[in-house]
Amino acid sequence: MNRIKLKTETIVLAADLAGTLVFAIEGALSAMRGGLDLLGVMVISFVAALGGGVIRDLLIGATPPNAIRDWRYPVLTFLAGLLTFVFHSTVQGFPATLILVLDAAGLALFAVAGVEKAILFGIRPFVAMLMGTVTGVGGGVVRDILLARVPAVLQADIYATAAFFGAFSVLAARRLGMAPGPAALLGGAACFTLRLVAVSYGWHLPKAVL
Amino acid sequence: MNRIKLKTETIVLAADLAGTLVFAIEGALSAMRGGLDLLGVMVISFVAALGGGVIRDLLIGATPPNAIRDWRYPVLTFLAGLLTFVFHSTVQGFPATLILVLDAAGLALFAVAGVEKAILFGIRPFVAMLMGTVTGVGGGVVRDILLARVPAVLQADIYATAAFFGAFSVLAARRLGMAPGPAALLGGAACFTLRLVAVSYGWHLPKAVL
Amino acid sequence: MNRIKLKTETIVLAADLAGTLVFAIEGALSAMRGGLDLLGVMVISFVAALGGGVIRDLLIGATPPNAIRDWRYPVLTFLAGLLTFVFHSTVQGFPATLILVLDAAGLALFAVAGVEKAILFGIRPFVAMLMGTVTGVGGGVVRDILLARVPAVLQADIYATAAFFGAFSVLAARRLGMAPGPAALLGGAACFTLRLVAVSYGWHLPKAVL
Repeated sequence: MNRIKLKTETIVLAADLAGTLVFAIEGALSAMRGGLDLLGVMVISFVAALGGGVIRDLLIGATPPNAIRDWRYPVLTFLAGLLTFVFHSTVQGFPATLILVLDAAGLALFAVAGVEKAILFGIRPFVAMLMGTVTGVGGGVVRDILLARVPAVLQADIYATAAFFGAFSVLAARRLGMAPGPAALLGGAACFTLRLVAVSYGWHLPKAVL
Repeated sequence: MNRIKLKTETIVLAADLAGTLVFAIEGALSAMRGGLDLLGVMVISFVAALGGGVIRDLLIGATPPNAIRDWRYPVLTFLAGLLTFVFHSTVQGFPATLILVLDAAGLALFAVAGVEKAILFGIRPFVAMLMGTVTGVGGGVVRDILLARVPAVLQADIYATAAFFGAFSVLAARRLGMAPGPAALLGGAACFTLRLVAVSYGWHLPKAVL
Repeated sequence: MNRIKLKTETIVLAADLAGTLVFAIEGALSAMRGGLDLLGVMVISFVAALGGGVIRDLLIGATPPNAIRDWRYPVLTFLAGLLTFVFHSTVQGFPATLILVLDAAGLALFAVAGVEKAILFGIRPFVAMLMGTVTGVGGGVVRDILLARVPAVLQADIYATAAFFGAFSVLAARRLGMAPGPAALLGGAACFTLRLVAVSYGWHLPKAVL
């Protein structure tokens, strides 16, 4: 039993670090496209990967945020920024589909982790779903603010919607009596699938013309 | 006595929800003008209405902020964003003067509520006035940051100034021995009046040309 | 002994207020160049001078932040903004080198104070260095966000790098057995020197062309 628990924790940690890494690399690429210098690239890597979790932790009162308490996260993102900067021609050669799939996996993971942590801190269900969504998309929002542009997530694409749907699925599954582990898996799968299906079919949210 | 207290609480809650609603609808309209999609419109509604209070609560250490603890506020703002999006031609038909008056009322209410809450959390008078001002204008500032433009409140108009004047009046009236209730009413009236008079007469703060 | 301690505290307070003042005046000048009105100028003065410390305090869980708890800091920055606005032709006449040196001194002071406070709140060394850097450059970042532009510190110049180097030097010196006082002085000197040498020689961080 104890060994299984240890294994689960290792898997969750590995998945979390992997998601962080993907978001950090993507952040570094946007920063380079925006003309930032090496330091700017490293800062955007940090912010894009950990900003969502930091905002969630500040809002639910879990201070200092995890990204500040556990030095492995900032070190990982700064290293990712540095390596993406140095080997940018290699990184740019990564297939777009691979990046898309890894990004969707990171989003799913962050959304599920975010809703779980909010519940743990006694946040009510509806707001916990918002916290899951913020965990998934908050880093990208801060990245876009620092690059002085309207956050991509507010303009197009089923992205935050997928994160919210994943967070919703976790809570709905639990309410229907599912155990926390399977509910988390289901929620992650729901977010991941919706995101990829939306990209494949070119789904967008409606806009109103004023 | 108890019934009167209940009544006062109901009035304050109703006024607070009304102010939140006005700010959410105005936020939704700016978001649509900025070309955001449905999700972006709902997010900006939330941020414009509740952002000021969230910033105040984070700064005075009242975590989790009220907008996170009480699910009615986020639900109200998301619904307001959704309905403004769907019925935008109707909403745009609202008379400009009505919007202006309701907005001034919302500003007055938020400024007074903000200074009261700061005092309750042991913040000293001058900073409490700043917290009242932040409660009134912070949502609009975050809205403008997300729309990648310089916050309107920093550029022109007697708006933050009216909020500060209202917060100042609350504390001045209390210092002169007025009871909290009448002092709050006086402060709200001061903010509301200054805002509307400033708009009528086209008052602006000075600018320096560099 | 007691008198010496008192003297040190007075010196630290005086230095802190001086650093705050320089950052506030520089913030006011950027705000005027950005076309803001008097209120906008005063807000940017506040934000540019105190924003870094506020972000640090929120992240390490020291709420309410010092800038909110101690009314002297906001009053000082608002006054600095007001006076810079009124006497802007005089202020613009200050020699650029003087501003540069005072700014470097402010940066050094903030970076050292930031790392010390983070350590005091039990933050681990690597993240404490980040907190020192954030204290030094965070105000400028928020100022640039409010002026709707990409933060200067992410684009060019050895500035955040100097703050990080200063914070690093404090911790390295302590680890090597130096007493806190001399270690702080050494770290401040390291930041100050690197900043000025970098400006003199036109050093920049590398950029990657994508």
